[in-house]
Amino acid sequence: MRDAFHEDLNWISEQLVEMTRLAGSAMSRATTALLDADIALAEGVIAADQRLDDIRVQIDDRAIDLLARQQPVATDLRMIVTAMQMGADLERMGDLAKHIAKVARLRFPNSAVPAEIRPIIIEMDTVAKLIVTQTGAIISRKDAQGATQLVQADDRMDALHKQVFTLLLDERRQYGIEEAIDITLLARYYERFADHAVLVAHRVAYLVTGEWQTVEGRQPTDNDPQSTH
Amino acid sequence: MRDAFHEDLNWISEQLVEMTRLAGSAMSRATTALLDADIALAEGVIAADQRLDDIRVQIDDRAIDLLARQQPVATDLRMIVTAMQMGADLERMGDLAKHIAKVARLRFPNSAVPAEIRPIIIEMDTVAKLIVTQTGAIISRKDAQGATQLVQADDRMDALHKQVFTLLLDERRQYGIEEAIDITLLARYYERFADHAVLVAHRVAYLVTGEWQTVEGRQPTDNDPQSTH
Repeated sequence: MRDAFHEDLNWISEQLVEMTRLAGSAMSRATTALLDADIALAEGVIAADQRLDDIRVQIDDRAIDLLARQQPVATDLRMIVTAMQMGADLERMGDLAKHIAKVARLRFPNSAVPAEIRPIIIEMDTVAKLIVTQTGAIISRKDAQGATQLVQADDRMDALHKQVFTLLLDERRQYGIEEAIDITLLARYYERFADHAVLVAHRVAYLVTGEWQTVEGRQPTDNDPQSTH
Repeated sequence: MRDAFHEDLNWISEQLVEMTRLAGSAMSRATTALLDADIALAEGVIAADQRLDDIRVQIDDRAIDLLARQQPVATDLRMIVTAMQMGADLERMGDLAKHIAKVARLRFPNSAVPAEIRPIIIEMDTVAKLIVTQTGAIISRKDAQGATQLVQADDRMDALHKQVFTLLLDERRQYGIEEAIDITLLARYYERFADHAVLVAHRVAYLVTGEWQTVEGRQPTDNDPQSTH
């Protein structure tokens, strides 16, 4: 019975890794759709999000079934509850990639991103994918220290987020209000995507150690995008 | 033993209602701080958010303790898991009110909200508080039908959200980029606050009926704020 239990837990863990892969792929394709004004690709990202929603439901169903049948305590119990929270974070990351794809679709045949802001969006995408890929590996290895390795990438995301606002507010450039609205929301979507991925990595540490790991005293919380302009 | 179990469940339910009260109060005071450029009030909202975080931790601890000690199945199990999800939503609502307070603090001694947009922000606040107050009552009464009563208020919030973008893009008005950034994010915070409250009300229905209630085929999901401009 215990073996069947751990097989089920492994299955849940594999599904969470699969969700990181799908979320990373969705982000990648959403960014391409946005920069290339590729509406077919945008539609593909929007449609594919259902897969992430479905996996999350399957994880919840399996988790609740496990709780009912096996009545786990201590670490096993904590693992199941935490897995459900991780599923919720990863589903939300898919939503954020979908929002980016919807901006691409809305502005088609134009691109929502002005030329000077493209390099920042490209790097935000790169950092987001790096974080979500590492988070997948952290889940897979049950790596309690893994979240600490994401600090640098997460700091880079915050710096890019600030850079977007600095550029938008540069008086030598004359952005339109519509551009400002799009870019403000896009930057928030990338930044929140990374936040949720970092939170998932922290949950792995919590699972393994039972302690909520803070990195240099920092909790993985929502940043305030405006605090720097 | 079962009586102690239901006492614990009642305690959790009361804490969730208390969270709706605190989230509503935070939103109310954040809006006043924003419109009156009242920095002391803004600081108060930011500091008070800790209370919501604490209650959420207490709910999770009690829920996990209940799962371990009582090993509930069926409806009781579902109630506990769902209560944890509701706690997460309500904590997030507190974060969103705090973000609004932080915009107020950032722009002090000015108000971040231009005169023509004030009436919309005031109404967004009114609708947000109406929804969170009703959600508190829905939790309290375990009202499976309650979420359907929020449709109108939620539609109103969406309409206000669109109205903000229409105003921002009105060419006769000349908004600055900084104003556009602030208003874009503020409008998103109000709208997300209402979304989470509606989601909590839907979770009550799920708790009571075991069925995820969709209202006129709609799932309570994140709207795409840009889809209408």
